[in-house]
Amino acid sequence: MKLDTPHTLAEIAALACCEFAGDANLVLTGINEIHRVEPGDIIFTDHPKYYAKSLQSAASVVIINQQVACPQGKGLLFADDPFAVYNRLTRHFCPPLPFTSAEARQAVIGKGCHIHPSAVIGHNVTIGNDCIIHAGVVVGDRTQIGDRVIIHANTVLGADAFYYKGRPTGREKMYSCGNVVLEDDVEIGALCTVDRGVSADTRIGAGTKLDNHVHIGHDTLVGRNCLFAAQVGLAGCVVVEDDVVLWGQVGVVSDVRSGKGSVVFGQSGVSKDLPAGHQYFGSPAEEARTKYREVAALRKMADSYSSR
Amino acid sequence: MKLDTPHTLAEIAALACCEFAGDANLVLTGINEIHRVEPGDIIFTDHPKYYAKSLQSAASVVIINQQVACPQGKGLLFADDPFAVYNRLTRHFCPPLPFTSAEARQAVIGKGCHIHPSAVIGHNVTIGNDCIIHAGVVVGDRTQIGDRVIIHANTVLGADAFYYKGRPTGREKMYSCGNVVLEDDVEIGALCTVDRGVSADTRIGAGTKLDNHVHIGHDTLVGRNCLFAAQVGLAGCVVVEDDVVLWGQVGVVSDVRSGKGSVVFGQSGVSKDLPAGHQYFGSPAEEARTKYREVAALRKMADSYSSR
Amino acid sequence: MKLDTPHTLAEIAALACCEFAGDANLVLTGINEIHRVEPGDIIFTDHPKYYAKSLQSAASVVIINQQVACPQGKGLLFADDPFAVYNRLTRHFCPPLPFTSAEARQAVIGKGCHIHPSAVIGHNVTIGNDCIIHAGVVVGDRTQIGDRVIIHANTVLGADAFYYKGRPTGREKMYSCGNVVLEDDVEIGALCTVDRGVSADTRIGAGTKLDNHVHIGHDTLVGRNCLFAAQVGLAGCVVVEDDVVLWGQVGVVSDVRSGKGSVVFGQSGVSKDLPAGHQYFGSPAEEARTKYREVAALRKMADSYSSR
Repeated sequence: MKLDTPHTLAEIAALACCEFAGDANLVLTGINEIHRVEPGDIIFTDHPKYYAKSLQSAASVVIINQQVACPQGKGLLFADDPFAVYNRLTRHFCPPLPFTSAEARQAVIGKGCHIHPSAVIGHNVTIGNDCIIHAGVVVGDRTQIGDRVIIHANTVLGADAFYYKGRPTGREKMYSCGNVVLEDDVEIGALCTVDRGVSADTRIGAGTKLDNHVHIGHDTLVGRNCLFAAQVGLAGCVVVEDDVVLWGQVGVVSDVRSGKGSVVFGQSGVSKDLPAGHQYFGSPAEEARTKYREVAALRKMADSYSSR
Repeated sequence: MKLDTPHTLAEIAALACCEFAGDANLVLTGINEIHRVEPGDIIFTDHPKYYAKSLQSAASVVIINQQVACPQGKGLLFADDPFAVYNRLTRHFCPPLPFTSAEARQAVIGKGCHIHPSAVIGHNVTIGNDCIIHAGVVVGDRTQIGDRVIIHANTVLGADAFYYKGRPTGREKMYSCGNVVLEDDVEIGALCTVDRGVSADTRIGAGTKLDNHVHIGHDTLVGRNCLFAAQVGLAGCVVVEDDVVLWGQVGVVSDVRSGKGSVVFGQSGVSKDLPAGHQYFGSPAEEARTKYREVAALRKMADSYSSR
Repeated sequence: MKLDTPHTLAEIAALACCEFAGDANLVLTGINEIHRVEPGDIIFTDHPKYYAKSLQSAASVVIINQQVACPQGKGLLFADDPFAVYNRLTRHFCPPLPFTSAEARQAVIGKGCHIHPSAVIGHNVTIGNDCIIHAGVVVGDRTQIGDRVIIHANTVLGADAFYYKGRPTGREKMYSCGNVVLEDDVEIGALCTVDRGVSADTRIGAGTKLDNHVHIGHDTLVGRNCLFAAQVGLAGCVVVEDDVVLWGQVGVVSDVRSGKGSVVFGQSGVSKDLPAGHQYFGSPAEEARTKYREVAALRKMADSYSSR
């Protein structure tokens, strides 16, 4: 997320109730997670495994639970519990807007749109021209929808990220302050979910079409002109490049990338990056011809076992 | 779909802005896709692979992008883009009815029905006697529901077909003018989708029961007294005969048939026709005893590999 | 379900229109299914396979379609059709409450709750403090929700059990009179379903978090601090112990138990009890390291076949 106005490191440290290292006047413009970070952003890390990656990232400030040296030109915020500080900052800059509040919702809806009955449009939503929002659709706060977008009935855009931190007393919820962006000519089937990003956007590229019951996790980026059949599920932080086809009930684990034009056959489980332009099948998914060879070999082997 | 009144070939050609071959007075009564075509129907074909099948079908008129000889007693409409002409005709004869229009919805609801709050009933819907439509259900235009039907909360009937034509500039949407028919004593779980047919009906036979999160694609025909467990997904143009049982998370690809009384175990993927009366398992699905033999053989083999 | 007031065996027999054996003054306090039965409960059995188990259970009264000897201290109700008698009794003691009735809904909602627009709250629901019920959520009759529970948009709590008895004329619906209980700090994603129990509760333990599109079947018991990713489906009468993690699209068949702390990887199909503390994968699921060994062995074997 971008801050409404830039803040100095000293101001952020005061809000966060943290000691800091670095230039007190360092200017900060956003809060982000490491996989989407840009200069000016604040990120957090609380595990030694990710310290180096975080400190070497584009982030201007790292919230960290270790006394490390401050990298040149950057800042550090020291905290025993960086996750909690991060949640405090995002909640400060992006407070929840309950539907029952007195504030105006301030949705901006283009011309030629049809909003069907029982659809619920959240705060600060923008919808382009010539869109159809079918009955019962729920459009979460700050969702951005392009032109000629169709959303079928009872779909939910902008539910919270499924993201918790394990604590001895239970799981603590990551506060979601990102949003959902649907580009032009996207069509979303009935009963789909597109979750908001944790601090950035979850994005569906122009011309992409989703069938019913599709799940798109937080911070996932889907390219242009993709086709996802019914009951496909993408975890968080997935990247799907342009022109990808996922057939029914395909699942994709978090943090993997499907290359441009890749095609994944039904019920496959994608657990690692898929090079562009090939066909995949199986759970775990592998190249389709390899998988089909395995299916045939297993059949032959079972025959030979049973004929003994 | 059936036309409200019969039209001559010459009249249709004028509406379609197409040259035609055949008797100008040939009487046409419907528009259909090839897998459901009847005499009197108009269909389209735009790929040489399907020319012969289309011309030899029961269709009275074929919209085609090739100068072929007109079969005896039939008509042809010549078009560079048969898909676009087909879409134009279906849209002409079955214009979309936005909920925000001034027209009456004209739903006919039988006696003894309970329609719960937030349910949305579209235009020209018919509902029989003693039905229960739970909260948040969306019943699309022209849906026909029999007697004693129960539909659980937030289910969506009559969303558009997931059907696009690839164009150099993106995917063009097939206009869906079919509908959904639920016969007597059907029960549909919560959060299910039954998509409308492209030009015919998507039909669920009498006495069939669906658990939650089930997806039924466009133009699919489900027989009587079937049982589909949760999260089953059927693509478009599937045929499921009577008394079929599909266990949880089963997927069925388009254009295949499950024979009467077949039973498919959980998470199976049906990719070809299933003969009646057998049990199936696996992805891809095969006869259950064959698949279980393979599972056992693979286990033995892995043991022997690892003991070397 | 518990009866509002205790009834004698003679009173129940009169309501059920059945002959009985045992002490006419035997006091009965509930109606239940065999997997959740307690002393004071009435259960039914209609198949010789389950007679012994039913008669030896904690049940005080068994509805049965066989002239058997009445166990000491218990009662029997004789019926040709125990299922029908059971349905008659549950319907008598727990009559359906249509939303359109004039009765007050009598929901009790704690302080600090946000109920978003289009949410529908059934009869006799209780909701604790500081809960968030998002737009379009449907909360079925008699649902009990603890403190700090979050339910995302368009989720459905308390749809009927998917439970039918096969009859020569079709499938007869089991009347569901149980409910749903969500303990403190539960979070349920968007577009989930948690079905009511047939006669007892379906329960989600404190601190458990569900992602979107999750299905929880009737009478299933989920422990504390579990984590279920998107599109997980649990059939009826499943038991999931504390701290279990199910990754995306996992399915679990009815009547099995996942031991404490077990972890099941994505798309696995759990078809038998899982011992506590291990990791599982595959469809059917087995120990993950076994399954991965099989995957590797199959790959090797296919290579050797194809290199011949």
